[in-house]
Amino acid sequence: MKLLIKNALILTVNPTNEVLENADIAVEDGRLLAVGKVPENFQADKVIDASDQIALPGLVNAHTHIPMSLFRNYADDLPFWPWLLEKIKPAEDHLSAEHVYWGAKLGVLELIQSGVTCFSDMYFYMNEVATVVKESGIRACLSGVLLEVGDLGPTFMKAAVDFHDSWHGKADGRINAFFGPHSMYLCGPEYLRETTEEALKRKSVIHIHLAESRQEVADCLEKYGKSPVQHLAELGMFACRTAAAHCVHVSADDIELLKQHKVSVLNNPTSNMKLANGFAPIDALLKKGVNVALGTDGSASNNNVNMFEEMHLAALINKAVTEDAESVPAQQVLRMATINGAKALGLENEIGSLEVGKRADLILLDANKPHYFPRHNPVSSIAYSAQAADVSTVLVNGQVLLENYQLKTIDLQETMQEAERMAFDLVRRAT
Amino acid sequence: MKLLIKNALILTVNPTNEVLENADIAVEDGRLLAVGKVPENFQADKVIDASDQIALPGLVNAHTHIPMSLFRNYADDLPFWPWLLEKIKPAEDHLSAEHVYWGAKLGVLELIQSGVTCFSDMYFYMNEVATVVKESGIRACLSGVLLEVGDLGPTFMKAAVDFHDSWHGKADGRINAFFGPHSMYLCGPEYLRETTEEALKRKSVIHIHLAESRQEVADCLEKYGKSPVQHLAELGMFACRTAAAHCVHVSADDIELLKQHKVSVLNNPTSNMKLANGFAPIDALLKKGVNVALGTDGSASNNNVNMFEEMHLAALINKAVTEDAESVPAQQVLRMATINGAKALGLENEIGSLEVGKRADLILLDANKPHYFPRHNPVSSIAYSAQAADVSTVLVNGQVLLENYQLKTIDLQETMQEAERMAFDLVRRAT
Repeated sequence: MKLLIKNALILTVNPTNEVLENADIAVEDGRLLAVGKVPENFQADKVIDASDQIALPGLVNAHTHIPMSLFRNYADDLPFWPWLLEKIKPAEDHLSAEHVYWGAKLGVLELIQSGVTCFSDMYFYMNEVATVVKESGIRACLSGVLLEVGDLGPTFMKAAVDFHDSWHGKADGRINAFFGPHSMYLCGPEYLRETTEEALKRKSVIHIHLAESRQEVADCLEKYGKSPVQHLAELGMFACRTAAAHCVHVSADDIELLKQHKVSVLNNPTSNMKLANGFAPIDALLKKGVNVALGTDGSASNNNVNMFEEMHLAALINKAVTEDAESVPAQQVLRMATINGAKALGLENEIGSLEVGKRADLILLDANKPHYFPRHNPVSSIAYSAQAADVSTVLVNGQVLLENYQLKTIDLQETMQEAERMAFDLVRRAT
Repeated sequence: MKLLIKNALILTVNPTNEVLENADIAVEDGRLLAVGKVPENFQADKVIDASDQIALPGLVNAHTHIPMSLFRNYADDLPFWPWLLEKIKPAEDHLSAEHVYWGAKLGVLELIQSGVTCFSDMYFYMNEVATVVKESGIRACLSGVLLEVGDLGPTFMKAAVDFHDSWHGKADGRINAFFGPHSMYLCGPEYLRETTEEALKRKSVIHIHLAESRQEVADCLEKYGKSPVQHLAELGMFACRTAAAHCVHVSADDIELLKQHKVSVLNNPTSNMKLANGFAPIDALLKKGVNVALGTDGSASNNNVNMFEEMHLAALINKAVTEDAESVPAQQVLRMATINGAKALGLENEIGSLEVGKRADLILLDANKPHYFPRHNPVSSIAYSAQAADVSTVLVNGQVLLENYQLKTIDLQETMQEAERMAFDLVRRAT
């Protein structure tokens, strides 16, 4: 399949952040054959006219729990423990594969509609999420969660290893299997060492929650005499490529360790605010040279998977926290949501920017709307005024998943109805 | 004109925050004749089927500078002084009535599309803004800005008085003329006293910027030996109903004064972050019983006039600042964007909730979209997951301004093109 996209304003997010006006893109065999000028002899099977549209790399949602779309608007304005123990966990206790399948499908549908072409997930029943990824055409890095709850540690470990070995590289290479130890407070040191070993053996990536709350840090200091970051560093986990979600409560020494071990930080502005954890020191992390990506977290602490909102927030919050209006400028935020996400997931040679040879994972925004006018600066418009609802077209691996706002691989009405039926069933069982 | 809206999920925002399922609304002569159950003998001229839609009071954008849509995405990631002196002011120096007309029209179009039925504005060439309000059908509270720049104080004062007396109550009562002294740092004590007198004589409202930056507070303390809030209180300004934008840097004593004098605070989360002023103490203000409304500020410091984003931010930011997940819950945020806005503008008996006898200023959101599913809680969905692009229908005074996403009173393409032409003209002159 050869595809030609014509007349777009292209934000390449390449190393020099090049912007190309009135430019074309050629796609062949799922990869970018040309960006800017297309060879005259390129014979397209399909042509998309992108006049008045902005083309950019598909967004990377670097930390989410996609089946938790089932709990959207279900448990809000609550402190963490009542949120978890009185609302979320009692419902999760009744999860079946079918619940997770439809929850994941609703979430993936929302990701595609809002311009995400790759997401990194951690949850239960990961086979179901992988099935949805396979069916929908999206790209994903999937981590079956690893927990030491009761005596279930070994069961989770076996499932994670099996999941990796069954799914890694599947769905035309769109599925990457990662290892997802939940956190240093739900996994003991020995378990974390074992996880690291399994991940290293498979040259995989570790996806973990880290330094999310004050309590996590205080408990870790009390138990181990060191911060969570230091704890993981000393356990040797960072020998494996690690993507750490949150990192809200990290010290200058922690930041130094993250930098030294090339740990990527997955920033979740909405979730950190909603659960009252605070503001991660993103300005300091970026200035230190740490790779910072963006994620939405799950819809139970968000309540959507809208990466445009996370971009707006990342650009805005850090200015207020540092009282420096130059902190985290527009271009930085666009990089966080694209190429930095790709780097965090070890996919920077394949996705994250529009460069020849990379996978054709890209989106078009319909910029013929009032909030793009006057058209002073397209990069600012992405960081500050663009809306998820402007995403008109989505390609992953060169396959069109959304065209002229229409989903091509998922049935919208069926998915909304079935996911709601599943969610209401869980709530009924839980209460 | 008799209008019937059928089968809506209604968020009334009445004193008990009643939610009505599968309910109807009858509109007659621009007012709400019935909310919930409609008399059987009601003969509608027009029926709107609102199945799968959420009806709520039109949003009130309580602080903006609507013609500044001309400067959207023009001056970003800059500290306040370079932002103002190197970018905004050089362009504003070339403003003409024509520039302001088209800038206002672009802004008002965006307000209508995103569910705002009433806005409170302060800017230059207010006759042009009033003309746009008259033509477009929206409701507004308009303040010609009052400044003591050079010897222009009296000129601005005369213009403000003339503006009030020409426009107050015009456009079927949709235009309210206010007095808009810019701030305590651009208006001297005597000028503020005179403004208060003119406003009191006309039973008008004062719309002012207050305690926006640390520098404003420091300078005021140095010059007058008191905080900006105390300064205005002692000048007697608060004898007039006052709506104060920002109030980021207010002390406990200031909050006490605001409460005592029934000053409304207009919170602008995006703008306060973007210009690095910080986070206003909204939790403390609300707990003290101060009326807090929401606004977008102008598009030069936002970069849109999207009240859904301000609602999300108000709900989220305050949880992080106070580290209390129960701070500013969903219902509170919905009130801030509706009835509290109406109160701030002295219009609480006319708009701000869906109650019989009030003006028919209401909006419908298309909730048949994935980010509303599962439908656990409609109020949460407004505060956390709804998007401006979900606004399908907008009524002001019973007149339909947007129906099935189509603007009825403004030409979309013409306005985007003309506003852009005006903006590029200003930039050319300024640089």
